[in-house]
Amino acid sequence: MTSHVAADLHARFALAQEVARGAGAVALAHFNAREQLVIETKADPQDVVSAADREVEALIRARIATAFSSDSVLGEEYGVSPGASDYTWVVDPIDGTSPFLNGMPTWCVSIAVLRGEEIVIGVIYVPCADETYAAAAGMGATLNGKTLKLDATRTIRNAVTGIGANHHVSPATVASIIEKLLDAGGSFIRNGSGALMLAYVAAGRLVGYYEPYMHAWDCMAGYCLVKEAGGWHHPFPVTGDGLTKGSPVLAAATGAVSDLRQIAGL
Amino acid sequence: MTSHVAADLHARFALAQEVARGAGAVALAHFNAREQLVIETKADPQDVVSAADREVEALIRARIATAFSSDSVLGEEYGVSPGASDYTWVVDPIDGTSPFLNGMPTWCVSIAVLRGEEIVIGVIYVPCADETYAAAAGMGATLNGKTLKLDATRTIRNAVTGIGANHHVSPATVASIIEKLLDAGGSFIRNGSGALMLAYVAAGRLVGYYEPYMHAWDCMAGYCLVKEAGGWHHPFPVTGDGLTKGSPVLAAATGAVSDLRQIAGL
Repeated sequence: MTSHVAADLHARFALAQEVARGAGAVALAHFNAREQLVIETKADPQDVVSAADREVEALIRARIATAFSSDSVLGEEYGVSPGASDYTWVVDPIDGTSPFLNGMPTWCVSIAVLRGEEIVIGVIYVPCADETYAAAAGMGATLNGKTLKLDATRTIRNAVTGIGANHHVSPATVASIIEKLLDAGGSFIRNGSGALMLAYVAAGRLVGYYEPYMHAWDCMAGYCLVKEAGGWHHPFPVTGDGLTKGSPVLAAATGAVSDLRQIAGL
Repeated sequence: MTSHVAADLHARFALAQEVARGAGAVALAHFNAREQLVIETKADPQDVVSAADREVEALIRARIATAFSSDSVLGEEYGVSPGASDYTWVVDPIDGTSPFLNGMPTWCVSIAVLRGEEIVIGVIYVPCADETYAAAAGMGATLNGKTLKLDATRTIRNAVTGIGANHHVSPATVASIIEKLLDAGGSFIRNGSGALMLAYVAAGRLVGYYEPYMHAWDCMAGYCLVKEAGGWHHPFPVTGDGLTKGSPVLAAATGAVSDLRQIAGL
């Protein structure tokens, strides 16, 4: 990496962490006053959103535009803002809107940066736990400053796996994944935030995470975290319309990769 | 209720809350130093326990024995200590041992008190969130002092349902429950602590909770909380060996009862 590329990366990594925490504080204020939020539905009554998601994404976009006006931005609520530089920010202002609006603490701010087709930054901030997960390409992953390093002895049989489900995936498919995982001696959680469960994989709290269909803003930051912590992730298509379409998402510590790929058929 | 019965209830309710918080602080210290705990397995590699569970239960039992020496105590780790009074304490020192040992915040201390066959006290303390859920018969339910009152308009279709799974229940059964819930327009979480998910039902964060097989120490406090918040729960057998054997557990806000009973076949 040439020195100007390294400097570009460091500047964006610092901003991503600062903006994630600032945006998280704003989101937390909405969370603590959530009875005042109007809950809107998108694809179905379980697919919810509120003004908090839009306000937080607008705030993140404004900070990026001020600091790096030529970077592209892709966000869950406002879509693509194309730029001229080689960098693309991929933002989910509140991942886990359903837990957020229902009063559960398992939601987070997720910010990733791509340089070309490579995920070079992943930051996830969890306001209710005041946890910052941060990773940059070649620089490792940390949780509140402490280095994350995955344990190769953990498997689906002696650790917990996160599972995702949404309206893009049929009930029979979700049920089949859970049955296969339990049959193989696994155990699962689903906490309502895919980005947070991916951060948990990076932190060794979960041994893996699988969801048959997720968007880039749900998984890019988590993927960077898992990779930098020493884990593996399934490739996510980032060329053409890959970044705006969904794709299967699978990430795991090394000892769980083979079992989870078999369960997922990936 | 005669005045001495009321006084007996109040004294135990105060102790239950104080002891849950004190025990939770001790458990939290272990959680924050969990890499020093030796993880032991019980029925299978996913059914874990550590010295923290036993130490916290011993501490709770000692406090009860000092204050109410003639009360019975039933705890997950040390079983039944019979007493001569009409009161039975039902204790899970750490509900959600798997999340606890894996570093996730979704675990709690659960303390219930029965008077004869009636659950008269339910207290759940969540150390990582510093949340105290407390209910007593006829006195309502609170979360950190704020009254909990369930919303009758919430259903499985516009709210989230908690689902439990453990080695007593077949993978096919768990998968079938999830498929039926999703087919009916529902959404689920499983956070690894049944007691905490029942507390979430009382707080309106989940609309219901179903697990085909749970023990009394997992659900008694949560049942009291849900009932006092205005919800419904399936009866739990407390006579004979009912208290030490497992049973299906279902609790819900009124608008979800019919759908969840149908899914559970209860």
